[in-house]
Amino acid sequence: MGLVVQKYGGTSVANSDRLKAVAKRVVDTKKAGNDVVVVLSAPAGMTDDLTKRARELSDTPNKRELDMLLVTGEQISISLLTMAIHQLGEDAISFTAAQVGILTDNSHTKARIRSISTDKIREKLETGHIVVVAGFQGITENFDITTLGRGGSDTTGVALGVALNADEVEIYTDVDGVYSADPRLVEDAKKIQEISYEEMLELASSGAKVLHSRSVELAAKHDLKVHLRSSFSDAKGTIVKGGHMENCLVKGLAHSQSEAKIIVSNVPDKVGIAAHIFREMAKHNISIDLISHNLEKTGFQTLSFIIKLSDLEEAEKVLETSKEKIGAESIVIERDIAKVSLVGFGIKSNPGVVASVFETLAEEGINIHIISCSEITITCIIDKKSLEKAIKALHKKFNL
Amino acid sequence: MGLVVQKYGGTSVANSDRLKAVAKRVVDTKKAGNDVVVVLSAPAGMTDDLTKRARELSDTPNKRELDMLLVTGEQISISLLTMAIHQLGEDAISFTAAQVGILTDNSHTKARIRSISTDKIREKLETGHIVVVAGFQGITENFDITTLGRGGSDTTGVALGVALNADEVEIYTDVDGVYSADPRLVEDAKKIQEISYEEMLELASSGAKVLHSRSVELAAKHDLKVHLRSSFSDAKGTIVKGGHMENCLVKGLAHSQSEAKIIVSNVPDKVGIAAHIFREMAKHNISIDLISHNLEKTGFQTLSFIIKLSDLEEAEKVLETSKEKIGAESIVIERDIAKVSLVGFGIKSNPGVVASVFETLAEEGINIHIISCSEITITCIIDKKSLEKAIKALHKKFNL
Repeated sequence: MGLVVQKYGGTSVANSDRLKAVAKRVVDTKKAGNDVVVVLSAPAGMTDDLTKRARELSDTPNKRELDMLLVTGEQISISLLTMAIHQLGEDAISFTAAQVGILTDNSHTKARIRSISTDKIREKLETGHIVVVAGFQGITENFDITTLGRGGSDTTGVALGVALNADEVEIYTDVDGVYSADPRLVEDAKKIQEISYEEMLELASSGAKVLHSRSVELAAKHDLKVHLRSSFSDAKGTIVKGGHMENCLVKGLAHSQSEAKIIVSNVPDKVGIAAHIFREMAKHNISIDLISHNLEKTGFQTLSFIIKLSDLEEAEKVLETSKEKIGAESIVIERDIAKVSLVGFGIKSNPGVVASVFETLAEEGINIHIISCSEITITCIIDKKSLEKAIKALHKKFNL
Repeated sequence: MGLVVQKYGGTSVANSDRLKAVAKRVVDTKKAGNDVVVVLSAPAGMTDDLTKRARELSDTPNKRELDMLLVTGEQISISLLTMAIHQLGEDAISFTAAQVGILTDNSHTKARIRSISTDKIREKLETGHIVVVAGFQGITENFDITTLGRGGSDTTGVALGVALNADEVEIYTDVDGVYSADPRLVEDAKKIQEISYEEMLELASSGAKVLHSRSVELAAKHDLKVHLRSSFSDAKGTIVKGGHMENCLVKGLAHSQSEAKIIVSNVPDKVGIAAHIFREMAKHNISIDLISHNLEKTGFQTLSFIIKLSDLEEAEKVLETSKEKIGAESIVIERDIAKVSLVGFGIKSNPGVVASVFETLAEEGINIHIISCSEITITCIIDKKSLEKAIKALHKKFNL
């Protein structure tokens, strides 16, 4: 008999039929001899609807009040699921984060969990209850309601798994695992059976929208096994766990189209120019990705880097102000780019992989704007129009 | 400078435009030099929608979980209104009942308030905040969420007014006060300027749907002035307060069409027959109103009484079982009846009033099935089809 934490996302609790299906799965897990703790997101779309309503009333909604508003979604999910479980004849009880005691700092809309009290949950598990907990939310020492930010329900699920010393955390979404590439782009993309925390982290931060990075970090820190699977099928999904599990070099491909490239060209080659730009960006909380720095004509340099499209407007303002100071000839913005990442242990220690990436893309006539290698990732910036061709060619090349 | 508690009902917070209008009224009250505490209901229709969703999942939803579900409506109202107040430049903060400390017993779906802690509210009022509190809800000692039952937000408003020693509680609805009769039936019905707690209670329990009886009782117990008014206009409404305020005999007319009459006829005139019937009804939690007991032929009695239409199905079953035991010749159910009540101090001490009621209805050819007098009420059961005629005639007769 084990202790299982199951987290269900918004599409899994979107309507009564879906809730009944989730209730059945939860009850089956309980009947198989497990203690079950369930963590739920808000019904799909509700968080967006509520946010929209807030913006109808205030240009910049107060964050404490926004948290007070948004947590209602999860509260609706937990009470309804508990009723559906009762209907199947099992004991169950719902708790808000405040009732359980999921204590966070007071950074409203992006709070971090400080501690979780497990007394109430254990007491109910011991009397045979299925315990249903609201994800995404927390409470401060001052009894203010907080939220953990987007994807926060994953974090609640993993944090509860850690606090309860669970055997496994199951994360249910509308996809049945992590794939070697986006199945919408690559027909023969394969489901990855097992993946390490590090690889999962790289995939998540490279654009694969499966699991929130913070929850992967938390699971890795406590070596907690996470099972990513679909609430629409019984198929095994992808297991995320510790260690280097397989000897294949490249585990998977991720991609993203939400970046822009900035080229600051023909800047006098003085020390401190790049530092100045990046310090200004940091002041405005704009993250910089992949940097390329070239000496061009004698005494001049060109600096290219990648930022999030959502930061572009702000970045343009910053650069406009800095342009004269740094003496740049021109600043060019490229929006039609895409990012492709190859993730896998051993990538760096095997120089053949980088060579293969260059060769494969060259054969397809695809130009690499910027390339960057970390311990387990190779990331290329290419033209957006070549994305699908690049993914397909790389997927084939590395036998994924 | 005073302390005002304002309670707004569901239609007042139903959409963004209405919320903005409420925010403006609240801010105006604050700017006029008052401390303001606001109590809100759920947006109109939301409680019904959520109840419907619960019934899709469970035949008999667990009451603790139903409370967990239903309180989300008020939580949405308080956060959105607080944002709308911020937008007008005033400091404001929202609190759930759990955060304030509105402690109740653990009778889920119909909890009674035991105590209210006012520390948190006072602290925020002192720093210039408008405090916005979720109505209808409470928390038990064990941190379970409860609700106070239908109309419970009125009770929250009055209870907070009592706990904070407020100068006045304003209850905002979509009508602008209490009328001498239903304005939809009687064209020249007049708004009542002032009414006593006792009269208000009688009107409320006689069918006038303005203010929840429990909140009137609570206000009366603590002699707290309640102002019933419309959130759609600035007009003064009806003040409910202590004492006999005016010398007119009949203050207002109320009516109801949600009753049925039961006639148990030609029962042997033995002691204990009526007691038996009423005890059986009580066992099934069926309330009995207006009783008429007549000795008919020698040795026989006929018993008529009024019950709620919603209890009729249950009552018929009870009577079917009892019929043989009590030896009743027949049991007749009359559904097409209506109840008319005249409310006002001095009604009983002035026998002329009852006489006038009989005369007025007789002149209109309206038959009185049952009549009953209390200290400040005369209630008549008549045919439903004569209701409008009766109300109009009585309204005219007593110069309302």
